[in-house]
Amino acid sequence: MELLQQCIQEKGKVIDGHILKVDRFLNHQVDPMIMKAVGEAFADEFKDKGITKIVTIESSGIAPAVMTGLILNVPVIFARKKQSLTLQDDLLTAEVYSYTKKEANHIYLSGAFLSDKDRVLIIDDFLAKGEAALGLIRLVEQSQADVAGIGIVIEKSFQEGREKLNKLGYHICSLARIASLHENRIEFVNEDKGSVKSSMKNLHGLQ
Amino acid sequence: MELLQQCIQEKGKVIDGHILKVDRFLNHQVDPMIMKAVGEAFADEFKDKGITKIVTIESSGIAPAVMTGLILNVPVIFARKKQSLTLQDDLLTAEVYSYTKKEANHIYLSGAFLSDKDRVLIIDDFLAKGEAALGLIRLVEQSQADVAGIGIVIEKSFQEGREKLNKLGYHICSLARIASLHENRIEFVNEDKGSVKSSMKNLHGLQ
Repeated sequence: MELLQQCIQEKGKVIDGHILKVDRFLNHQVDPMIMKAVGEAFADEFKDKGITKIVTIESSGIAPAVMTGLILNVPVIFARKKQSLTLQDDLLTAEVYSYTKKEANHIYLSGAFLSDKDRVLIIDDFLAKGEAALGLIRLVEQSQADVAGIGIVIEKSFQEGREKLNKLGYHICSLARIASLHENRIEFVNEDKGSVKSSMKNLHGLQ
Repeated sequence: MELLQQCIQEKGKVIDGHILKVDRFLNHQVDPMIMKAVGEAFADEFKDKGITKIVTIESSGIAPAVMTGLILNVPVIFARKKQSLTLQDDLLTAEVYSYTKKEANHIYLSGAFLSDKDRVLIIDDFLAKGEAALGLIRLVEQSQADVAGIGIVIEKSFQEGREKLNKLGYHICSLARIASLHENRIEFVNEDKGSVKSSMKNLHGLQ
């Protein structure tokens, strides 16, 4: 998605060659226009999949998920990272390991909002090692609903999350695929040529 | 706002005569259509206030804030309840006391996204004792930006938050004002007559 790639390139900041900070438009300050475009892209990708619910995780997944839900005209459920006072009925839970924090945490979802008739689109802001997406898949599957697709705003394609989800056979749509953050430069996967811009550049540099 | 009141009446659930559970459309499952209508109502109320930024707090404030930001065409910043790895520059912080959990917590906002030229609309899902709203006001004021208005989706008018904010002189717009949750029944403030539906009913019952 061209607009999103431009936005990441212009407003994103790479830290230590592996952290991509996108707090100017996605996960602290949110650009509603970009989120609308993201929602339109996901809605277009999954419009024929009979989606009945969207599931995401607080907090950065909420804006893109709600924009997608608006266009597909389906409710959005955001999994919580803490069990709240009012979240107690039919509680579904899954463990998610955070490599950043080096600890396992639970995520929670009320099973009251999903049934075996639901076809769920999972949406999240980032896909890196795949832990959050796998946690959301486990929550949805506990409710007997089907995972009909996975929409990711930014995929770190140099980490193993995408491959893990591919192996499980899910329909995945990542709107921006980062090939490398090496030397704090953002390089995208070149989808058209099935290769990587940065590799091409490196190759070029060797000639 | 008629649509919101209907939605609260039909989908809300009162627990112990004082907790209003709205997790079917606002703070766990989110109804994007209702959020759009909420956004339109806030945008209409504050359209002449020269709003340049919206500030809310994760997680339930995000959906209504982003819908409002989309219509007013301004960025949304959501304050965080935890300090993250990438949220460290120009960090603003305020203490918020939670009466439910009986503990004080900090909320965080990057000062990099606000300046003395900004006119900020604060949006939150609930106003009860006013602690979260006051915390957000303190964050915005630390950045030297102006608080140009406060938009609340559901106000518990029987608690003191509204009065506290009124005394400080802010322009407040609450889309649904709950007069009472007594006996687990939801009664709204009757804005037209400057009185309370439930009081009218009680009065009627005495005749």
